[in-house]
Amino acid sequence: MVTIRDVAKQAGVSVATVSRVLNSTGYVSEDTRRKVIETIQLLKYSPNEVARSLYTRESRLIGLLLPDITNPFFPQLARGIEDEVHSQGFRLLFGNSDEDIKKEADYLHTFTQNHVVGMITATAISMKETYEQLPYPVVFLDRIAEQYPSVYADGREGGRMAAIEMIKRGSKQVTLLKGPLSVRPAQERFQGALDVLSESEVDFHVMNTTSFSFEDAKKWAKELFEKYPNTDGVIASNDIVATAILHEALKLGKSIPSDVQIIGFDDIPQSSLLFPALSTIRQPAYDMGREAAKLLLKYIKKEHIEERHIQLPVTFIERNTTRKVDSNG
Amino acid sequence: MVTIRDVAKQAGVSVATVSRVLNSTGYVSEDTRRKVIETIQLLKYSPNEVARSLYTRESRLIGLLLPDITNPFFPQLARGIEDEVHSQGFRLLFGNSDEDIKKEADYLHTFTQNHVVGMITATAISMKETYEQLPYPVVFLDRIAEQYPSVYADGREGGRMAAIEMIKRGSKQVTLLKGPLSVRPAQERFQGALDVLSESEVDFHVMNTTSFSFEDAKKWAKELFEKYPNTDGVIASNDIVATAILHEALKLGKSIPSDVQIIGFDDIPQSSLLFPALSTIRQPAYDMGREAAKLLLKYIKKEHIEERHIQLPVTFIERNTTRKVDSNG
Repeated sequence: MVTIRDVAKQAGVSVATVSRVLNSTGYVSEDTRRKVIETIQLLKYSPNEVARSLYTRESRLIGLLLPDITNPFFPQLARGIEDEVHSQGFRLLFGNSDEDIKKEADYLHTFTQNHVVGMITATAISMKETYEQLPYPVVFLDRIAEQYPSVYADGREGGRMAAIEMIKRGSKQVTLLKGPLSVRPAQERFQGALDVLSESEVDFHVMNTTSFSFEDAKKWAKELFEKYPNTDGVIASNDIVATAILHEALKLGKSIPSDVQIIGFDDIPQSSLLFPALSTIRQPAYDMGREAAKLLLKYIKKEHIEERHIQLPVTFIERNTTRKVDSNG
Repeated sequence: MVTIRDVAKQAGVSVATVSRVLNSTGYVSEDTRRKVIETIQLLKYSPNEVARSLYTRESRLIGLLLPDITNPFFPQLARGIEDEVHSQGFRLLFGNSDEDIKKEADYLHTFTQNHVVGMITATAISMKETYEQLPYPVVFLDRIAEQYPSVYADGREGGRMAAIEMIKRGSKQVTLLKGPLSVRPAQERFQGALDVLSESEVDFHVMNTTSFSFEDAKKWAKELFEKYPNTDGVIASNDIVATAILHEALKLGKSIPSDVQIIGFDDIPQSSLLFPALSTIRQPAYDMGREAAKLLLKYIKKEHIEERHIQLPVTFIERNTTRKVDSNG
C-alpha cells in the first residue's frame, strides 16, 4: 500500500509538506502543491486524510445575504442571526447584494462553492428558479416568499398603524412617502398606510423616493416642504428618511409635533436618541434575525417544522414627534 | 484501476450519489454518505475529483472579526472591507467577538478550519502567541499592533484636536469622557485630549464610562450634568455617547452650543442628521476597511508591501454643537 512517505519521496519533498497540502494548512508554493498532487494521482495514493475530509466537508457555514450592512436596520438583523447560529455551532459567510442581481448571483455561487449548509437572504431579487436549484435550504428574511420558509414583520399592518395614529393625533394634511419600488417591504407598509388614508377624511399627498440613503433623504425632506408647505403630518418610508424630515422641519422653524407630526418605520437604535425622539413603527429586527436562524437550523438539522412562515408583530412606539392623545379619545 | 462505477456498485448506490458525496452537492442521507466513503476507502478509490478538490481547497475566504456590528462605526468598516475583497474575487467569513476572549478563540478556530487565506480583526485581545501560530496573514484594523500589519486612524491626534477646538471655541469647564479601558483606540483619543487639557488653562473633569451602548450612555449623560452642572464643554468618547449628552442637555433646557459645546468621535452616519448636527472628529471608517483589505490582499497575493502600518488621518468636522470661531481668532 502506498504511504504518505512514498509520496513525499517520489515528489522530493518532506512528509510535512505532503501533509500541509492534504490539509491545506501552512504555506506551500503553488509549484510544490501541484507536484505533490500530481504524485498523489500518479501513485494512486488514497490517504485516510482525504477520505476524512469528505466527512468534514459537511461544513458548518451558513450564507447570509443582506442588501447593505450600512443601513442601520440590518446590523440588528445580522446580530440576531449571528447570536443564534453561533450558539448552535454554526458560522456566517456574509455579503451585501446592493439589491444588484449580479452581486446576488455571485454570492449564491460563492455560498454553494463553499459548501454552506443553508442560507438566509434579506434581498432576493433573482428568479424563483435560481433558488429552487440550490442544494441547501434557504430562509427568506424581511421578505414574504410564499414558496419558501420566511420570517418577516407585518409591514402592511405597520403602515396601517402609522396612518391611524397620525389621523387620531389630528394631522389633516398628511404627506406619505413611498419607499423604493424594488424594496417589497417598503411597498407593503406604503400600501397599508394608503389603505387607511384613502378611507379617511384627511387630505394627503404621496411622494416617491428611490432609496434609503441619508444623503438622498435630505434632498427629499427639502423638496417635501417646498412642494407641500402645509404638510402637518409625515409618514416616512423608514427612520432614516424620518430623521431627515425632522431635521429639515426644525431648520424651517417648525415646532414638532405641534406644527408637524412625524412617524418613522423600523425603530433603528438611534431613533430614540433624536431630539425630539422619533415616534415610529417598530420592527423587531434582532428577533427577526434570530427567528430566521432558528428556522433555518431546523431545516438543516431536519427537525420538525411547525410553521414555514413566521410573521412577527410590529408596534407603535410613541415618542415625541407625535402629539399626545387626550385621555377622552 | 478502480472507477466511480465500481464504488457505486459495491456501495449499492447510483453513480450520481457517489458523485454527490464527492462534490458535497445535493442531499445525501448521512447513512448513504458514510457507506459511500467507507466503500471509497475499502476499494482504495482515488478519484480525480478528490485530487482536484485539493486544488480548489485553496479557498478565497477571508475571516473578519469585529467587536459588534450593531455599533454604528463598524458597518462602515465592514462595508469598506467587503467592497474591496469582493472586487478582487474574495469573500468574507464574519463574526462578532463582543471583546470576549472565548468568542475570539472560537472564531480563530473556525477561520482556520474553513481554510481562510487571511484575516482582518478589529478586536484582538488574545495572546500574541495565538496570532503567531495562525497559518495565514492577519491585518489588525482600528488597532495598533507593532508586530503585525495594521490600519488605524490617528486617535491620539483626534483627541488632541477635540480638546484644541473645544478650548479655542471658549469652553472653560470641560468634561472629558474616558471610554472603556478594554478599547485601546478609546484610550488613545482620551490620552490625546488629556495631554492638551492638562497643559491648558481650562478646568476639566474626567468621567469614566464602561461601554458604548446607547442605554448606558443615557445614564452617563444624566450623571454628568448632575455631577458637573457647570460643564460648558463635553468631549465625548464617541458619537453615540455624544448623542446622549446632546439629548440630555437639550432636555435640561440648555442651549447648544452657547451653553454647552459637544464634540464626538467617529462621525457615524447619523451624526450629521442630529439637530443640532454633531461636531465631531471623523475617522474614515470606510477607507480604513478598504485599506485593511488592500493590505491583506497584498500579503495573500505575496505582492510587494511598502508599508506594514497604515495610519489614516482624522479630521475635525465642524457642525452645530460647537461655536463658530471669529475670523480674528
